Amino acid sequence: MSVADTTRKKRTRQIAGSPPVAVGILPNLIGYNVRRAQIALWRDFSRTVGRGEIRPAVFSLLILVEANPGIAQFELADALDLDKAAIVALLHRLQRRQWLTRRRSTEDRRRHGIFLLPRGQEAVERLRDEMIEHEKRFTRLFTREELTQLFAYLRRIHP
Amino acid sequence: MSVADTTRKKRTRQIAGSPPVAVGILPNLIGYNVRRAQIALWRDFSRTVGRGEIRPAVFSLLILVEANPGIAQFELADALDLDKAAIVALLHRLQRRQWLTRRRSTEDRRRHGIFLLPRGQEAVERLRDEMIEHEKRFTRLFTREELTQLFAYLRRIHP
Repeated sequence: MSVADTTRKKRTRQIAGSPPVAVGILPNLIGYNVRRAQIALWRDFSRTVGRGEIRPAVFSLLILVEANPGIAQFELADALDLDKAAIVALLHRLQRRQWLTRRRSTEDRRRHGIFLLPRGQEAVERLRDEMIEHEKRFTRLFTREELTQLFAYLRRIHP
Repeated sequence: MSVADTTRKKRTRQIAGSPPVAVGILPNLIGYNVRRAQIALWRDFSRTVGRGEIRPAVFSLLILVEANPGIAQFELADALDLDKAAIVALLHRLQRRQWLTRRRSTEDRRRHGIFLLPRGQEAVERLRDEMIEHEKRFTRLFTREELTQLFAYLRRIHP
């Protein structure tokens, strides 16, 4: 939600003459604050990255396959903290789009790995540019030291 | 994921002889870190609060109705940052469970408001206790000053 949207909503409530909403214990809960941040990020992401057709998990998956050609399905599931059903569904969708393929590793023929196809490589490059644009709208709210601190706090929550 | 799970997973990967997964730009992205924290919180929440039958949005909605008897549907949608379809679906489900009801406000007869029913009040009290148990597992990772700082950072992201 943009600052303009927030202002507009507040004004509407004032016109309607309602008292401000009491929020109980919510603002003091980690879960509530992380979820609100996640919603705000998700909203901006879906406007900016992949024209609303790409979910954050798909972006992360593509980045991982690009950085680890031949990565195994279980490694992707681990790294993305997704369960097996979710990773299978994602991979299936991206194989149908011809962004990814599963084939034997050239280095270790016993291993079946996941690789980007040219169309997937193009997509990753376009999406990464859009991701950087999206990120800038949030990183500019912090100094470099604050951002380092925020990341360290978030990593305590997701060990 | 518990520390034990993490250790077990790492060991599995070592046994399999795979090199560690390269994670590209992901750990430097706000969105990635907030989403991972959100997943970790969600996982613990769903194990602790409402025996997996309550989503965080339902918990927040109940707390808001308890703190604001007679709150309007649009105010709930605003406060929870949910769209109209989502809030209508949530309210419908909770009315069928007889946790909530919609009726005219006793203070302002022109207003239709949402109120907790006795069964909903009981649920809120039980869920709040479970929520506090869930929260403690994460708040204990921070000093009071760090937690205040983390909340301030997250509020910059969700203005």
